[in-house]
Amino acid sequence: MTAPHIFDRALALKPSGIRAGHSTGMTSADYWNMIGPFGGTTAAVVLQSVLQHPDLLGTPIALTVNYAAAIEAGAFDVQATAVRTNRSTQHWTVEITQAGAGGAPHVTTTATVVTAARRETWGANDLPMPTVPAPAAVKRISIGPTGVAWTNQYEMRPISGKIPATWDGGGDHSESLIWLRDADPRPLDFTSLASLSDMFYPRVWLRRARHVPAGTVSITTYFHVGPAELAAVGTGYLLGRAVGQQFHNGFFDQAAQLWSEAGLLLATSNQIVYFKE
Amino acid sequence: MTAPHIFDRALALKPSGIRAGHSTGMTSADYWNMIGPFGGTTAAVVLQSVLQHPDLLGTPIALTVNYAAAIEAGAFDVQATAVRTNRSTQHWTVEITQAGAGGAPHVTTTATVVTAARRETWGANDLPMPTVPAPAAVKRISIGPTGVAWTNQYEMRPISGKIPATWDGGGDHSESLIWLRDADPRPLDFTSLASLSDMFYPRVWLRRARHVPAGTVSITTYFHVGPAELAAVGTGYLLGRAVGQQFHNGFFDQAAQLWSEAGLLLATSNQIVYFKE
Repeated sequence: MTAPHIFDRALALKPSGIRAGHSTGMTSADYWNMIGPFGGTTAAVVLQSVLQHPDLLGTPIALTVNYAAAIEAGAFDVQATAVRTNRSTQHWTVEITQAGAGGAPHVTTTATVVTAARRETWGANDLPMPTVPAPAAVKRISIGPTGVAWTNQYEMRPISGKIPATWDGGGDHSESLIWLRDADPRPLDFTSLASLSDMFYPRVWLRRARHVPAGTVSITTYFHVGPAELAAVGTGYLLGRAVGQQFHNGFFDQAAQLWSEAGLLLATSNQIVYFKE
Repeated sequence: MTAPHIFDRALALKPSGIRAGHSTGMTSADYWNMIGPFGGTTAAVVLQSVLQHPDLLGTPIALTVNYAAAIEAGAFDVQATAVRTNRSTQHWTVEITQAGAGGAPHVTTTATVVTAARRETWGANDLPMPTVPAPAAVKRISIGPTGVAWTNQYEMRPISGKIPATWDGGGDHSESLIWLRDADPRPLDFTSLASLSDMFYPRVWLRRARHVPAGTVSITTYFHVGPAELAAVGTGYLLGRAVGQQFHNGFFDQAAQLWSEAGLLLATSNQIVYFKE
């Protein structure tokens, strides 16, 4: 018997039986960030709570996660609610709560999810994969760029827009291209795709070559594939691209895309990030 | 005494006194779309419910609106809840409900909003305004492109990517550029910026030159300005750009940006849209 992948352990949610869609989980030391879990893991936990709900219709289309408060190490509660089920789409709200020091639970995370039963239609891609060297031709970085636990769980082969080697204020753009996959191979699924969508370091660090405090406030990811396309990716690499758009008075947004190595655009994601100074 | 602008009438929410953040509104015939209110107006109503809440902290940063069900003509209820208030950010959930035929209320719209007290910081723009002719040099279209009520409430001067004149299946791209403002001049504010973010017609129509059924499922808008920058725009034109990214099995996403005529990126927005065939 094989031990479960650490990502699956981080996503393990136990239905409480208290009410439909309510479950409990535990933060993962493996995916720890500076002062809380890696936001990608939290997004994946949100999605997992919907995916394991007995009333689920279809597959994920859209996921918005708002990081309202840091999640402390330990147990948390997740409530997934199917607010509206249409013929082919389903609308969910999700909340993660934690008991505070005084025992009164508080909300750490709000989220909405849309799932849908997709039907085969015409399709097209208007955001083609950039031309880049193959993964094997790009050097793997041996440790994550920020020295926190979660970055060790991903194999990263940055092509351009690497994290600045020196914080000298010399930045002049905000675009990164990188090959990515789980360090311990795990077939791609919706939860890992959700997590990978949040794995680009804050664009302000690149743009300014200054290591200012920054943290995601809200992320929205759109899924452009079904289970068959995910299965075709398997444990293969994804090409990730992230770029900043507007930086203004304490917040900036960054747009991200994830393509399969074969060039299929799997997910597009946007986030708004707090920064200081 | 001047009559209120029709947009302000569409946004008029009356606190019910039933509980904090609960109010009632009425759909607007002026902003009617095919089978419900224009989604931009609904997004603006969501934002308005937060902006008029007595506990509001700061100004809007992020807005996600999920269109769970069509809103029928008539009265609706809005509940805005401040889920978490931090030192400088505030997290909101918003729900619009309507009484059904049988009188049982159902959710038509779920939403999350982040507001924040911004502080002056370094800033930059990495998504410059495209070079286009000035508004006066671009012909105004005399009626809205889709022949529904709401399009008459906007002055539209499309530069490129106009709605196809014939549905001949000859499309080959999904990008539109257009000068926009309220047809009846109204100084720009956060609610009208939210509404304008949703005013681009479905990219699938342009991409395919086919008039297939399509409708927004979820929209996320990030606000990159404060009241002073909005005041500087006043009743001026905004340059809007929208482009499709991935079209696959019944859904596509479109990215949109809105710049002031002076070239300031005011808002970036993304939506995921259902389409048929």
